[in-house]
Amino acid sequence: MPIDLRLDADEVPLLTDFYQLTMAAAYFASGNNDTACFSMFTRRMPARRGFLVAAGLERLLEALEQFRFVPRMLEYLESLRLFTPEFLAFLSGVRFGGEVWAMPEGTIFFAAEPILEIRAPLIEAQLLETLVLNQVGLASLIASKAARSLAVAGGRRLVDFGLRRSQGADAGLVAARSSYLAGFAGTSNVLGGMRYGIPLYGTMAHSYVMAHAQERAAFDSYVKVFPRLSTLLVDTYDTLRGVENAAAVALELRAQGVKLQGIRLDSGDLLELSKRARRLLDQRGLSDVPIFASGNLDEYRIAELVKAGAPIDAFGVGTAMVVSADAPALDVAYKLVEYRGEPRLKTSSEKVTLPGRKQVLRARNAAGGCFADLIGLFEESPAIAAREFRPAPNSVAPLLERVFADGHRIGARPPLSEPRERFLESFARLEHRYKDIDRPDNYPVRPSAALNALLISEKLRVGRRQG
Amino acid sequence: MPIDLRLDADEVPLLTDFYQLTMAAAYFASGNNDTACFSMFTRRMPARRGFLVAAGLERLLEALEQFRFVPRMLEYLESLRLFTPEFLAFLSGVRFGGEVWAMPEGTIFFAAEPILEIRAPLIEAQLLETLVLNQVGLASLIASKAARSLAVAGGRRLVDFGLRRSQGADAGLVAARSSYLAGFAGTSNVLGGMRYGIPLYGTMAHSYVMAHAQERAAFDSYVKVFPRLSTLLVDTYDTLRGVENAAAVALELRAQGVKLQGIRLDSGDLLELSKRARRLLDQRGLSDVPIFASGNLDEYRIAELVKAGAPIDAFGVGTAMVVSADAPALDVAYKLVEYRGEPRLKTSSEKVTLPGRKQVLRARNAAGGCFADLIGLFEESPAIAAREFRPAPNSVAPLLERVFADGHRIGARPPLSEPRERFLESFARLEHRYKDIDRPDNYPVRPSAALNALLISEKLRVGRRQG
Repeated sequence: MPIDLRLDADEVPLLTDFYQLTMAAAYFASGNNDTACFSMFTRRMPARRGFLVAAGLERLLEALEQFRFVPRMLEYLESLRLFTPEFLAFLSGVRFGGEVWAMPEGTIFFAAEPILEIRAPLIEAQLLETLVLNQVGLASLIASKAARSLAVAGGRRLVDFGLRRSQGADAGLVAARSSYLAGFAGTSNVLGGMRYGIPLYGTMAHSYVMAHAQERAAFDSYVKVFPRLSTLLVDTYDTLRGVENAAAVALELRAQGVKLQGIRLDSGDLLELSKRARRLLDQRGLSDVPIFASGNLDEYRIAELVKAGAPIDAFGVGTAMVVSADAPALDVAYKLVEYRGEPRLKTSSEKVTLPGRKQVLRARNAAGGCFADLIGLFEESPAIAAREFRPAPNSVAPLLERVFADGHRIGARPPLSEPRERFLESFARLEHRYKDIDRPDNYPVRPSAALNALLISEKLRVGRRQG
Repeated sequence: MPIDLRLDADEVPLLTDFYQLTMAAAYFASGNNDTACFSMFTRRMPARRGFLVAAGLERLLEALEQFRFVPRMLEYLESLRLFTPEFLAFLSGVRFGGEVWAMPEGTIFFAAEPILEIRAPLIEAQLLETLVLNQVGLASLIASKAARSLAVAGGRRLVDFGLRRSQGADAGLVAARSSYLAGFAGTSNVLGGMRYGIPLYGTMAHSYVMAHAQERAAFDSYVKVFPRLSTLLVDTYDTLRGVENAAAVALELRAQGVKLQGIRLDSGDLLELSKRARRLLDQRGLSDVPIFASGNLDEYRIAELVKAGAPIDAFGVGTAMVVSADAPALDVAYKLVEYRGEPRLKTSSEKVTLPGRKQVLRARNAAGGCFADLIGLFEESPAIAAREFRPAPNSVAPLLERVFADGHRIGARPPLSEPRERFLESFARLEHRYKDIDRPDNYPVRPSAALNALLISEKLRVGRRQG
């Protein structure tokens, strides 16, 4: 019997807004299905964000390869009594035959930049809107949030502990993957570890200590089974007495030639407790036993602890990271920018879009660091657009790559280490002022002269679209 | 080929924190697997929340019925080279044979109250922690958030439009279900509609208008296919000119005896635009054409619009609701409260837990409205505990029901209408001061005298647990 928590591949095409299907039916009825280009971008940077990290593309491409409406789904749509048999027959034959151009996972990006463009027959491209926004939006949101902890951790190890409070099963998997992509060392999420080959981390819960009559007995029984894997949780009762119990265990282990993997603090004043725990461990000759901290941590708290010199060696980051608590959604949009070879734009109120199929050009200096981006037209020559950068860049590279064509992703799915390295390398070269977690500078992004000219001429034309 | 976006029922037991498995292995090695009781509760109310709504239980019970470690999962665990063959063999035989006591979905609850207790052999109960928190936490979070829009909408229709920005696929499904449970009229999420029988809503996207040379042509082509289902999106270009175009379409439809379903405003000053749109429609004799509003709406914005008298008939609520933007996680915990028949509690820092297996008793007045809750011991007599309420209640009812035993949920899965009605009925009787979306009063919840006595005696005993 299928359980509600599952999601079948067959169901993915219905993971969409109802209007995508009614629009598709209306397009179908009027024979309106020429080539369209849709552009996905973030309208604005979330508060306090100086950069974003692209993720979620690989999973999307996989879903596109298998995108089809199977009979069970068509039967449901038929049961709504809204769609014609002709349209449902058409839907049953829909495959994604278009092209996807996208920033590879791990690319650093900024507001207004297209991170993905889909060029396909109008109906196919439209049907994908919800899925694209949902998946690429979430994965990029979490990668971007996780990278902020990396920015302040000063090389200390970071581990995803968030599964219990992630917004559902899917978000938990995405968080494990996106945080690893953004430089975390591992995750507590076992299925995440299995699916993506991410190192698993875990210590023990308070319940483990509480299930024993004595804290010390709990520690002993654990190290007996996992002598080389034990991080002892010391704050179930009185924390410093817990550290003393852990130290006693560590000394016994050492006598057997084994090193205790660490102690974990999960509550209280982490700065003060970590200092006292460190002192206590050092006094017993246990300076090689690391201190692991967790409990309502986020980049702000980690930055404070690091700055205050807390002797913490690794951080378990949970809720705040996996839900991106201070900015729990990206303001992502997926807009029609070209139809039948003609540019399109929306003009109402604050949500003006950039017309036309596009490319993002990134200027780098001699050290390989990026310093400005230009949003250009797809057909613009990078060499010519490059002249618009000041100072003159050492190199200019297009960021959107063709990643899907002819019904298949281009090339094999890379191992997760590849986007992780891509991100870590560019992040290391990104100027610190864009990485500030409170008041980052705005990274310079602007439309190219050619795109600007198109924008102006299209705005003039829009009046005519309302008759 | 399985796609990454899927989730198989087989994978659910690995949707867990790694430490659940290492603890299980340690318990197994020491033969520590007697009956335990774990209690799930919310440590504190999120900011500005006066009440919470229980949801997510049904899906959990279904997963418990099918909980088992299949060979593919065991092979992965084996590959980690951490677990003994004996433990893996034991895991392969694990089924959930315990009892679940829980508040039925749709129950209103408050901080500190157990909303679910699991009584089972220690290892089974421990292995479920992550899944319980993840699923019940999210579903309750979203139901609680959605109910806040209901509290201020003054009977206007509310629709879930959030799938594109929900935190992943699972969260999108949960949001559709939880918001409907909390009184929404429907969802745009097609798979949500299919799975849960929720009414589907949808209008059209800006891209639909933009794919036509003229706004009017877009409206015409849509109503041609869906004459009885058309809500026209009027803000792609100039909004009021869009309303005029929609009005012209509505008059043509009327000549055919058909009523336009509505117009939708998705940007700009919704108060001002809705007033002007209403006037414009009324002037043309179209006072029966409703106005639908969407675009960054949440309970705060809806309350403002309703208070200002905006002539809006229905609200599409998206991002802020589906991610519970102002409180994107509940501070839920799952704590060991009893082992081998003895109470357990944790005492460190601010996170003291309430010991022992429990029951929640809700006092109601003559009108059926609840006015105070007592957290009592499981074995306490409700009749005796009832004497602790002031004023004397008309009735006192236990909220935790036995919902799972002997490997199966008790009774058939109810249709979603059942918890929806349960919620709507109790919500209607909940005093307004607890529903305020900015500064709600604290609903009175306290431990019973018997629980208090246990708490005090257990605190005294805890010192002995650290040797």
